[in-house]
Amino acid sequence: MTTPVRLGMVGGGPGAFIGAVHRMAAALDGQLQLVCGAFGSSPERSRSGGLALGLDPARCYADWTQMLAEEAARPAPQRMECLTIVTPNASHVPIARAALRAGFHVFCEKPVALSLAEARSLAAEVRSSGRQFALAHTYSGYALVRQARELVRSGALGALRKVIVEYLQGWLSEPLAGNKQADWRADPALAGPSGCMGDIGTHAAHLAEFVTGARIEAVSAELNRIVPGRVLDDDGAALLRFSGGLRGVLLASQIAAGEENGLALRLYGERGGLEWRQQEPNSLWLKWHGQPAQLLRAGGPATAAAAPWVRLPAGHPEGYLEAFGNLYREFAARIRALEQHPGAPLPQPAVPGIEAGVRGMAILEALLTSSHHNGRWQAVEDCA
Amino acid sequence: MTTPVRLGMVGGGPGAFIGAVHRMAAALDGQLQLVCGAFGSSPERSRSGGLALGLDPARCYADWTQMLAEEAARPAPQRMECLTIVTPNASHVPIARAALRAGFHVFCEKPVALSLAEARSLAAEVRSSGRQFALAHTYSGYALVRQARELVRSGALGALRKVIVEYLQGWLSEPLAGNKQADWRADPALAGPSGCMGDIGTHAAHLAEFVTGARIEAVSAELNRIVPGRVLDDDGAALLRFSGGLRGVLLASQIAAGEENGLALRLYGERGGLEWRQQEPNSLWLKWHGQPAQLLRAGGPATAAAAPWVRLPAGHPEGYLEAFGNLYREFAARIRALEQHPGAPLPQPAVPGIEAGVRGMAILEALLTSSHHNGRWQAVEDCA
Amino acid sequence: MTTPVRLGMVGGGPGAFIGAVHRMAAALDGQLQLVCGAFGSSPERSRSGGLALGLDPARCYADWTQMLAEEAARPAPQRMECLTIVTPNASHVPIARAALRAGFHVFCEKPVALSLAEARSLAAEVRSSGRQFALAHTYSGYALVRQARELVRSGALGALRKVIVEYLQGWLSEPLAGNKQADWRADPALAGPSGCMGDIGTHAAHLAEFVTGARIEAVSAELNRIVPGRVLDDDGAALLRFSGGLRGVLLASQIAAGEENGLALRLYGERGGLEWRQQEPNSLWLKWHGQPAQLLRAGGPATAAAAPWVRLPAGHPEGYLEAFGNLYREFAARIRALEQHPGAPLPQPAVPGIEAGVRGMAILEALLTSSHHNGRWQAVEDCA
Amino acid sequence: MTTPVRLGMVGGGPGAFIGAVHRMAAALDGQLQLVCGAFGSSPERSRSGGLALGLDPARCYADWTQMLAEEAARPAPQRMECLTIVTPNASHVPIARAALRAGFHVFCEKPVALSLAEARSLAAEVRSSGRQFALAHTYSGYALVRQARELVRSGALGALRKVIVEYLQGWLSEPLAGNKQADWRADPALAGPSGCMGDIGTHAAHLAEFVTGARIEAVSAELNRIVPGRVLDDDGAALLRFSGGLRGVLLASQIAAGEENGLALRLYGERGGLEWRQQEPNSLWLKWHGQPAQLLRAGGPATAAAAPWVRLPAGHPEGYLEAFGNLYREFAARIRALEQHPGAPLPQPAVPGIEAGVRGMAILEALLTSSHHNGRWQAVEDCA
Repeated sequence: MTTPVRLGMVGGGPGAFIGAVHRMAAALDGQLQLVCGAFGSSPERSRSGGLALGLDPARCYADWTQMLAEEAARPAPQRMECLTIVTPNASHVPIARAALRAGFHVFCEKPVALSLAEARSLAAEVRSSGRQFALAHTYSGYALVRQARELVRSGALGALRKVIVEYLQGWLSEPLAGNKQADWRADPALAGPSGCMGDIGTHAAHLAEFVTGARIEAVSAELNRIVPGRVLDDDGAALLRFSGGLRGVLLASQIAAGEENGLALRLYGERGGLEWRQQEPNSLWLKWHGQPAQLLRAGGPATAAAAPWVRLPAGHPEGYLEAFGNLYREFAARIRALEQHPGAPLPQPAVPGIEAGVRGMAILEALLTSSHHNGRWQAVEDCA
Repeated sequence: MTTPVRLGMVGGGPGAFIGAVHRMAAALDGQLQLVCGAFGSSPERSRSGGLALGLDPARCYADWTQMLAEEAARPAPQRMECLTIVTPNASHVPIARAALRAGFHVFCEKPVALSLAEARSLAAEVRSSGRQFALAHTYSGYALVRQARELVRSGALGALRKVIVEYLQGWLSEPLAGNKQADWRADPALAGPSGCMGDIGTHAAHLAEFVTGARIEAVSAELNRIVPGRVLDDDGAALLRFSGGLRGVLLASQIAAGEENGLALRLYGERGGLEWRQQEPNSLWLKWHGQPAQLLRAGGPATAAAAPWVRLPAGHPEGYLEAFGNLYREFAARIRALEQHPGAPLPQPAVPGIEAGVRGMAILEALLTSSHHNGRWQAVEDCA
Repeated sequence: MTTPVRLGMVGGGPGAFIGAVHRMAAALDGQLQLVCGAFGSSPERSRSGGLALGLDPARCYADWTQMLAEEAARPAPQRMECLTIVTPNASHVPIARAALRAGFHVFCEKPVALSLAEARSLAAEVRSSGRQFALAHTYSGYALVRQARELVRSGALGALRKVIVEYLQGWLSEPLAGNKQADWRADPALAGPSGCMGDIGTHAAHLAEFVTGARIEAVSAELNRIVPGRVLDDDGAALLRFSGGLRGVLLASQIAAGEENGLALRLYGERGGLEWRQQEPNSLWLKWHGQPAQLLRAGGPATAAAAPWVRLPAGHPEGYLEAFGNLYREFAARIRALEQHPGAPLPQPAVPGIEAGVRGMAILEALLTSSHHNGRWQAVEDCA
Repeated sequence: MTTPVRLGMVGGGPGAFIGAVHRMAAALDGQLQLVCGAFGSSPERSRSGGLALGLDPARCYADWTQMLAEEAARPAPQRMECLTIVTPNASHVPIARAALRAGFHVFCEKPVALSLAEARSLAAEVRSSGRQFALAHTYSGYALVRQARELVRSGALGALRKVIVEYLQGWLSEPLAGNKQADWRADPALAGPSGCMGDIGTHAAHLAEFVTGARIEAVSAELNRIVPGRVLDDDGAALLRFSGGLRGVLLASQIAAGEENGLALRLYGERGGLEWRQQEPNSLWLKWHGQPAQLLRAGGPATAAAAPWVRLPAGHPEGYLEAFGNLYREFAARIRALEQHPGAPLPQPAVPGIEAGVRGMAILEALLTSSHHNGRWQAVEDCA
C-alpha cells in the first residue's frame, strides 16, 4: 500500500453535516488521512473544531489563508497534499483558486461556483495548475450508477430516447428558520442565485449526463418559490433537450413533503430501459422490451463495471458513504499516480472534475434564464 | 336487488381488448347485462361477434344505426337501456349523439371526441337529453384513488403545492405495423390529432384533476414523435399550472421501453404527500412531514372513503377490472335511481361524465398548441 | 360461445364474504350463470337471500334438500347443472354427496371434509358418480402460480431442494366474538378439528404441492392456541419432508398482527429459486444462481404457461377474483366438454379436484397428530 | 476527541473478506486505529499482509504469539489495546484467551467457539480478566434493529406471540471447491461441528433474542446436507420455544439459490408486528392491528432509539459497514470509559459480548442435538 494522501479541510466543523461525511468517506478505505483544517467561521471555532477531531494542535488553523500558508511551508513528506472545501457555495472559488496556486490538489463541494463565469475562470486555473480537482457529485460514485453508464456506453439499451431524472426532498417544506443547513442555502449571498436547483437540481443534471453520456443542450424550466418568505427557488421542473435527440425531464424539489433524498434516474432506449433509485442504491433495474426485466445487484452477477467500486459481497448493503468513498479513493489514486509518473497521462476519471462544475453552472444558468423568461427554451452554453 | 341494466355495445368484437374489458367489468357485480350489440366493422363481423358472445341472434346487429332503431322499437321492459361505445375515437361523438337522441344512456370510451368543439357540442346534447353519460376514465374507479381524493378534500395534506403524474408505457417502442391496437391509434383520421397524449396523457390529466380537485389552467408542453415513421406523438411531457397555485408535471410516453402500464400519481401538500401507482393499486402511501409514512391498503384500516368500492378483505388484491366495475356499478345505480325517482336530484357522481370529456379535450388542445409553439405557456380553455 | 353453465349455490347469503366471491368469480367470464340457491340457515333467510340476488322466486329454496329435489325435477335445459357449496366445513361432505347422487357437478369450498376418512368416502362417491368435482383452492388459479408450476416441471430450476411456504394473517389477533366469519371457524363442530391449519394451512400445503409437483410425505408440527379462550389452533408451523428429498417449512398464522392475507411461496432448486406473493400476484421472481434475477409479470414476456389465464395486457393488474374466475372457467369448460363428448377423456385439470381435498385432509391429520405428540415426525397417509 | 483505540488484528490478510470489513468498520468513525497485526497462515504471508496495509514493519508480526508478546512489551502509550480476531472458528478461543491474559481487550468473530464448553471456559476467562470482549454479531449494529428492540421493550407491540427469523443465502448452492471462504467453512476441524447453522443460523438466533429480549428455551430442528459431498450442514430449519411463551421459527440456508444475504426478522405481538430486512436495512415496518402500517426510516421521524447509531439524514442509505462500525464505535467508547473511570460501572452494552457467544453455542448445540435425534424437542442449556 502507498502512503495515505494527507488531507486538509476547510469548513465542516463539528455539527456540519457535510464535513463529517467527507471525513468518514475519506477514512473508509485508508487511502487518505486528515492532517489539518480550518473548520469554522471564527478563529476560535476553527481551531477548536480541529482539536475536537483529534488533530495536531499545530495544524488546527484559524482560517484557510493561514492554513495554506503554513502547510505550504512544511516539509514535503508531511505537508498537506489535498484540500477539501466544504464551505458555503460563495467561497468555493476563492479558496480553490488559492489552494491550487499554493500547489494543493482540491476536492470541492458543489455547486463549484456562484456563476458560470466564475466556474470558467476556475477551470482555467485548474488547467494551468497541473493539480487534480474533484467535485463532490457523490451520486456518481455509486457502483451501480457506473454500471448503468457502462450499459449505455455498450449500446445494450440501443439509442437513447428519453431520460427522467428527479430529486425530491421534503425537508424545506417548512420555513426552518434557525436551521444552519437551511439558513445559508436560503441566502443568495452564500448560496448563489438558486436554492433548490443549485443545491440538488445540479446533482440530478449531472447524474443524467454522467450516465447517458449525452449533453443537455437546451432547457425549458419553471422554478418556484413555494414556501412563503423564501427568496430562492425551493422547487422546480424542466423539460430537457439533449445532444443526439434524447429528450428528458428534470424534477427537483425541496418541498416534496415526506420525501427524504429521492434522487432517481429512469432511462429509455430502443431496446430497453433502466431505473436506479438512490435510496435503494444496490439495485439497478433493466427493463427489456420483449424480455423479462432483470435486477442487477451490487456485488452480484453481470455487474463487471460496478465491481471495482464494491467492497462487499452481494446482499451486504453499501450506501452513501461508500459511494462518497469511491470518489475519494479514485482521487487519491490519481494523486499518487501523478506523483509517481509525473509525465504520464492519467486515464479518464470517473470522479467528476472541474468540467462537471462548469457544466453544472452552465445548466443552472440556463434553467434560471428560462424560468425568468416564463419557460422559453434556453440553450445551455457549450463549454467544452 | 333491482333488475340488471340492459346493456348494448358498439365496437369491441372478439379480439378487441377493450370490448372484453367492458363486458367483464359490467358483469362483475351483476348490475348490468349485455343484451345486444354491433361489434364489428362489417355487417357480417358485427353479427358474428354477437353470436360468439352468446347473444340473442335477433339482437346481433349489422351496425349501430340498425341497433339504435330496432332497440328503440322494442317494448320497454326488454329494450336496451344503455349503450357502451368502444369504437375508435373518431366515431364516439356521432354514435353517442344518436344514442342519446334515441333515448339511451351512454357509457363511452375516451377520449370522448376529436376536438374540444366536438366535445362541447356533445356536452350540450347530453344536458338536453336528460340521459346519463359516463366516460371510461377507468383509473378513477380504483378504491384508493377515491380514498386519495377524499384525503385531499379533507385537508389532511394541507394546501397542495406540487403534483407529479406520469403514464409510461413501452408497447409502442417499435413500429408495430399490423397490430390492430397500434394501427388505428397511429391514424389521425381514427385517433384524432394526438397519439400518446390523447390515448394516455388524458388519463393522467384526469387523474390529477380528479384527486386534487384543482383544474389545470395552463400548460407548457413538448410532444415528440420518437419512432421513425410515426405521424402522431408517441411521447411527451408538460409543465402544469393549476388553479390555486398548485404546480405540476405530466409525463406520458408509449416508447418507455420495458414499462407496462405505469400510471402513477404523486402529490405534495403542506403537511405531507401521497403516492399511488396503478400497477400496485391496493397500496396508497401517505408520506407525512415529520411523522412516519403510512401505508393505506384497500380493505384495510383508515380507508372509509375507499370502502364502498372494495369487494374483498384486505390482502385479497383487486385490480383493473374491479376498478372498471366500480364505474359501471355506480353508473347502473344512477340509471335505476333516475328511473325510480325521475324528478329527484342525483348525488354528485364519482364516475366521470361528459364534463370530464370536455376537460380532457380542452387540456389536450392546450398541450398540442403549446407543443406546436415550442412550449410556450398555453391557457386551457375554461369550459365550466 | 356455448351456453353458460347453470349454477346453484348453498350457503353464502348476503353478508357472507365467500358466497359473493364465488358469484363474482363465476360471473366474470360469462361462462356460468347463477340460477338458484339456498342461501341461509333458516328457510326464511335462505329464500330472502335468493330474492335479494334477483333470482327467480321459484328457485329461491328453503334449504338444500329442497333445492336438489326440485332442481332435479326440472327439465334438463333449465335444470341446475353444478352446485357450489359455501357452507361451514361440517356440511361439505353431506351436501356434496347428495348433490353428486342427484346428478349435479360440485364446486366445493375447502377444507372438503372434517376428516380424512370422510374425504376418502367422498372421493369414492365422486369417482362413481361420473360428475366433476372442484375444490376452491383459489390460489392455484393465479396465472403466475401456473407459470411457476410449469417452470418447475420444465426443469428450469434443476432438482428442487427447499420450499418455504407461509400464510400469515392477523385478523384473529383478538378474540373477535360475534364476528360471523370468526365464530364458526372457532367452533369444532362446524370447522372441524383445526382452526388455522384447516382454514389456511391447507391452502399453503396445496400451493406447495401444486407448484413443486412433489408430495409432502412427513411433517413435524407445532400448532398453537395463542389467543386466550380459543379452542382451535390459531397459529402453527411445520417442518416438511417431501417426496424426492425436497425439504420444506410451512408457516400458518391468524394471529400475525398487522398481516392481511400473506400467502407466499419460495422455492429453491439447483439452478435458481422462485418467489411468488399473493398480495402482489402479478409478479413472479426468478432468482438465478450466477445470473441476475428476472421478474416475470402476468401478461408479460416469457409467461406462456400463464397466458391462457390472463385477461389483460401486462400492467393491468388482475387479482383474487380473476384467479378464482380461472377455476370456474376451467370447471365450466370441463362440464361442457363432458357433455359434448361423453366418452372422451378430459385432459388433466389444473383446477383442484377431490384428490386435492383428500391430500389436504391427510396432511392436516398428520399435522394435528404430530403436534399432539410434541412434534414427532408423522407420515402423511398416502392416498393416491 | 479522545485518542483512537490502538487495534491489532489476527487473521484477515489481503483477500480475506472479513478482515477488510473489520478494518473499514473500525476506521469509519475515527475511533480506532489499526497499529499491528498477524495476518496470514505463514510467517511470510503474515508479515507481508501487514506491509501491504501500510503498517509499521516492526509491527507486522509472524504470528499471533509473537504479536501478543511484543505488543505487551511496548510502552503503554503506543501498545496495542484491543485485538480483533478474524481467524477460522477453531482458533478463536485459544487466541482470545491468550490475548485476555496478556491484558488486551478482544473483538472476536463469531461463532466464538467450537463448543458450548469451550465458550463457557472463555466466558470465565473474560470475567476474571476485567477486559472488554465483543462478538461480531454485526446485524445487531443496525440502527433500526436497535429501534426494533426498543419498540419491543417499550411494550408498543404488546406481549410478543410469534417470531420468524430467516437467513437465506445461495452462495453454497454449488460445491465451490477451491473457494477460500467456502473451504474452511466446510471443514469441521476449522469450522466446528456445524456449517450453515454455525455460520449464519447463530446470527439469526442472536438477532431474534436481541430484539425480542426473550430467550430460546427449546428447539426442534432439522439440519440438512444438501449438496453432495458436503460434510457439514448447508441448510436447516427449527421450531423455537422462547421464554414467556413466545413461539418462533428459524430458517437458515446457504443453498437457497439466488439469495444473497437474506437475513430478515418478523415479529408479532398482541397489538402489531414489525418487519426488518437486512438487505434494505434503513426501513423498519410497523404493522399495526387495526391501524395503517407505518414505515420507520433510519434518520427519520419516530426513531429516537436508532438516532445515536445513524450518521446521515434520512434517505442517505447506510449499510453493513456502518452497522459494523456501530459495534466498534461503542466498543471503543467502552474501552476509553473503562480507562478513564476504572472503578465506575459501565452501562449495559448493546454490542454483543461473551454472553452472546455462550448463548450462541448453547443454541447451536441444542439445534445439532435435536437434529441428530430426528427433531425431538431439545432444551437450550441455561447459561445465565
